Amino acid sequence: MKLQVAIDRVSLEDAIILAEKFNGKTDIVEMGTSLVKDYGNLAIEKLSQTLTQSELLVDIKTMDEGEYEFRQGYRYGGDLLTVMGAASVDTIAACYQVSQEKNKEIMIDLLEVTNEKIEQLKQFDKAIFCLHHSIDRKDAWDATDSVSKFREDFPEIKHLAIAGGINLDQAKKLAAKNLVDIVIVGSSITQSADPVKSIENFMEAIKS
Amino acid sequence: MKLQVAIDRVSLEDAIILAEKFNGKTDIVEMGTSLVKDYGNLAIEKLSQTLTQSELLVDIKTMDEGEYEFRQGYRYGGDLLTVMGAASVDTIAACYQVSQEKNKEIMIDLLEVTNEKIEQLKQFDKAIFCLHHSIDRKDAWDATDSVSKFREDFPEIKHLAIAGGINLDQAKKLAAKNLVDIVIVGSSITQSADPVKSIENFMEAIKS
Repeated sequence: MKLQVAIDRVSLEDAIILAEKFNGKTDIVEMGTSLVKDYGNLAIEKLSQTLTQSELLVDIKTMDEGEYEFRQGYRYGGDLLTVMGAASVDTIAACYQVSQEKNKEIMIDLLEVTNEKIEQLKQFDKAIFCLHHSIDRKDAWDATDSVSKFREDFPEIKHLAIAGGINLDQAKKLAAKNLVDIVIVGSSITQSADPVKSIENFMEAIKS
Repeated sequence: MKLQVAIDRVSLEDAIILAEKFNGKTDIVEMGTSLVKDYGNLAIEKLSQTLTQSELLVDIKTMDEGEYEFRQGYRYGGDLLTVMGAASVDTIAACYQVSQEKNKEIMIDLLEVTNEKIEQLKQFDKAIFCLHHSIDRKDAWDATDSVSKFREDFPEIKHLAIAGGINLDQAKKLAAKNLVDIVIVGSSITQSADPVKSIENFMEAIKS
């Protein structure tokens, strides 16, 4: 299981400082959507230059113009890019095609996506599917239960990630069950007193 | 009916040149999602400073973190901001609340949204609902038919916009039927030989 640490809602200067600290400590650093929308490609370029030892996921959340957004995202240095599962299948297909052409990773964000729609997305078999509980939603969820249920419903989907309020305990449970490829952690790490130490704790928990 | 002209997939320098030309000629200038994702808030700020006589819609396509994205979008100078109808109702509610607090406009983009979901969104009665056919989708659609159908299905929704491959003929038909508040036009204007003349043609067609 890989650890992906999300950097969000900070200035570009602070994002670069965090990326320098996280470089090589976590498998993947995520440039959160807030940084995409606040700074655009400049931020992708800066973080990509900083991250010499971790991969860079850009949470670009493509909803339309799939080919354009994915070409731009990879061009400026993203290793993994996200498209919304809520986008049209044609948009997702356009993103998928660019990812395969460029030999890069694509993550399909399942935020607010129905099972019926997921059935249509299974064809994108090299994509990483991301179970995602909105930061704005007020209802509770259990990450391990959600993943187990998803694996039962869609056994043919190979690559899975999970995001949404994941803490150390949940990460440990997910690792023990060996059900996801990537666990995505945001504020549990970045808002902690010592984010680098916190990453070490997560890495120890999920790699052991 | 208002005309909204979308600027997309150009450099920020070219976007500013176009915005200078369009300023005061069209009701609303749209900073397309490609400019949001390529340049971030800097582009909102620059276009906002340029547009002294037209409103600025920023097609920010919020999917999550509604409050954060909307505060940023209005702060840098957007008059109207978009949220995806495909986002969670909680996200849309967060965006709506910021729009009302700031006395600004909110557009809910109905790209890939089911009628069942629209039922849940009717509560946001000051929002402008945007019927939107994805640029990536390969199937055809008729804008006038789509709007008429929508008005029948959702008579209680007050404010409506339409986007997706609208040309001058379609704009005329829409104006004649008086069914939408805003018609959104992109490449039919910006890719024409003389975009300002093209705007004049559209304005004449829809205002007469």
